[in-house]
Amino acid sequence: MHAITLDAGTLRFRDDYPLPTPGEQESLVRVIQAGVCETDLQLARGYMGFSGVPGHEFVGIAETGGHAGRRVVGEINCSCGQCATCQAGRPTHCPHRTVVGIDRHDGAFAQWLAIPESNLHAVPESVSDDQAVFVEPLAAAFQITDQVDITKSDRVAVIGDGRLGFLSAQVLSLHSEHVTVFGKHQHKLARFADKGQSVATVAAPDPADLPHHAFDVVVDCTGSTTGLGMAVQLVRPRGTVVLKTTVAGTHELSLAAIVIDEINLVGSRCGPFDKAMDALQTGVIDVDGLITNRFRLDQVEQAFHSATQPNSFKVVFDIGSDPQ
Amino acid sequence: MHAITLDAGTLRFRDDYPLPTPGEQESLVRVIQAGVCETDLQLARGYMGFSGVPGHEFVGIAETGGHAGRRVVGEINCSCGQCATCQAGRPTHCPHRTVVGIDRHDGAFAQWLAIPESNLHAVPESVSDDQAVFVEPLAAAFQITDQVDITKSDRVAVIGDGRLGFLSAQVLSLHSEHVTVFGKHQHKLARFADKGQSVATVAAPDPADLPHHAFDVVVDCTGSTTGLGMAVQLVRPRGTVVLKTTVAGTHELSLAAIVIDEINLVGSRCGPFDKAMDALQTGVIDVDGLITNRFRLDQVEQAFHSATQPNSFKVVFDIGSDPQ
Repeated sequence: MHAITLDAGTLRFRDDYPLPTPGEQESLVRVIQAGVCETDLQLARGYMGFSGVPGHEFVGIAETGGHAGRRVVGEINCSCGQCATCQAGRPTHCPHRTVVGIDRHDGAFAQWLAIPESNLHAVPESVSDDQAVFVEPLAAAFQITDQVDITKSDRVAVIGDGRLGFLSAQVLSLHSEHVTVFGKHQHKLARFADKGQSVATVAAPDPADLPHHAFDVVVDCTGSTTGLGMAVQLVRPRGTVVLKTTVAGTHELSLAAIVIDEINLVGSRCGPFDKAMDALQTGVIDVDGLITNRFRLDQVEQAFHSATQPNSFKVVFDIGSDPQ
Repeated sequence: MHAITLDAGTLRFRDDYPLPTPGEQESLVRVIQAGVCETDLQLARGYMGFSGVPGHEFVGIAETGGHAGRRVVGEINCSCGQCATCQAGRPTHCPHRTVVGIDRHDGAFAQWLAIPESNLHAVPESVSDDQAVFVEPLAAAFQITDQVDITKSDRVAVIGDGRLGFLSAQVLSLHSEHVTVFGKHQHKLARFADKGQSVATVAAPDPADLPHHAFDVVVDCTGSTTGLGMAVQLVRPRGTVVLKTTVAGTHELSLAAIVIDEINLVGSRCGPFDKAMDALQTGVIDVDGLITNRFRLDQVEQAFHSATQPNSFKVVFDIGSDPQ
């Protein structure tokens, strides 16, 4: 089949990659469309030392299992279901898990992928492929509000004007009437206004320009080691900082402020698919027009380059039309 | 009066320091005894750029105000009571606050100090001076359990076998039956057994020897920038790390694990005096014998040196017997 592989930091299109063999309790899914995520860009730079087929944001058609014939999206953590962590209700933290397209599990930049049937969620008719491909990253944004109680009057800051910052701000504005996004790029910040959410944007090229102690909750979506220092400056004493992006690099900062201001720092990763799907179906979250670039799998180089460009938002591989 | 002053990193005994003039709503307190804390050692190394009289753990006799004639201990944050932060119930984070013996407010290494009357707590007859001098640091330990819910079955780790680690472990063992202290010094760890608390101790000279993901809650009392990395290793996914010690230095570490494991990191500082006093009065916390060294104010050099020595626990200045 057609697939993109990553090996020792090199991305390659292959037209002869073997079809995945579903394990017991796994379904075979024919991929329609798959999104390129910041994590994919980091994997390509060596993060996690992943080799195999990347890609973890997808919509496809289940060909086997209980969902056979239906459009599906899939959670990415493949957990054992048996260990103490799984039994304690934290399957996304199963120590035995593989992660689709990220850790020892071939992903969705391919014509087919094999994935545990229990990871799949059927996509309602009214949700388009272009919407469904956002379920995974949108679920990650909904994880913030699953972890942190946010009320209407809470002053919430999002640092970072990229994809994750955008989806996070949309979700946060469902809870708070005071969401402010701090970003470096005027044309990226313009997107927030376009979507009509009650989100204020501030172009802050210099951390020194950021206010001190002005927000109850601050979400770091920078994907950079500089984000935490800014977040600690922005948040009020006893406020909450949500670390949303994994950064491969090393932080070098003083954490004295975290103790002195008794800040609550929360790491946040994968989230609830049901809430993301509901939000897309009811239209409270609008992702129309956010796919800015579409590529075939054999255009891997152009696609990954495009995903790093400031004028692109979501880059997807249209895979369903590849000859089978 | 007799006082110890700190100026540009130099500690000095003075017999001619001017008596403090209490402000409106402040009481004058004659100091009986004052403890040397890790923060004092850091102040002497330049932390906070403090100049004035250090000392913030004390028991004394109020000479003016509503508590006049009674033995008292005092909270250290002198807040304005008027600002939005104070009105929101977070006076210890008042942006206008001074801090006794730490930030723009002369402290307790002196024969008298002036302190807001509302900061004072009367000491019951049954609590001795030697116990009362522990109220402030013990309150800081109780802050942990005010911020983090800890149940009997929670596996709790304390990293650090010093004063704060000891008091924290004592408080934590009131909530959890599974408290483990990791320390570097066998003779310090021996103290934990002496107090009969249900605290296990592990001598872990090398971070590489620490287990992974083995604790629900980890409290960093190391006073070192190496503590957080160890804590993140020890805590289970979605567990809580409490940062208890302010460290003047810069952390250099990867925070990816905080995101991937969705760790909750909580900064923790000053705590509830009432709970600490209750615990001493009822005897659920036993501090008998923990004062290992007593000095006069004019022995400042010996006292501060003694406080850095591994075989000393709490070093105090006996001030009440100084000629007035």
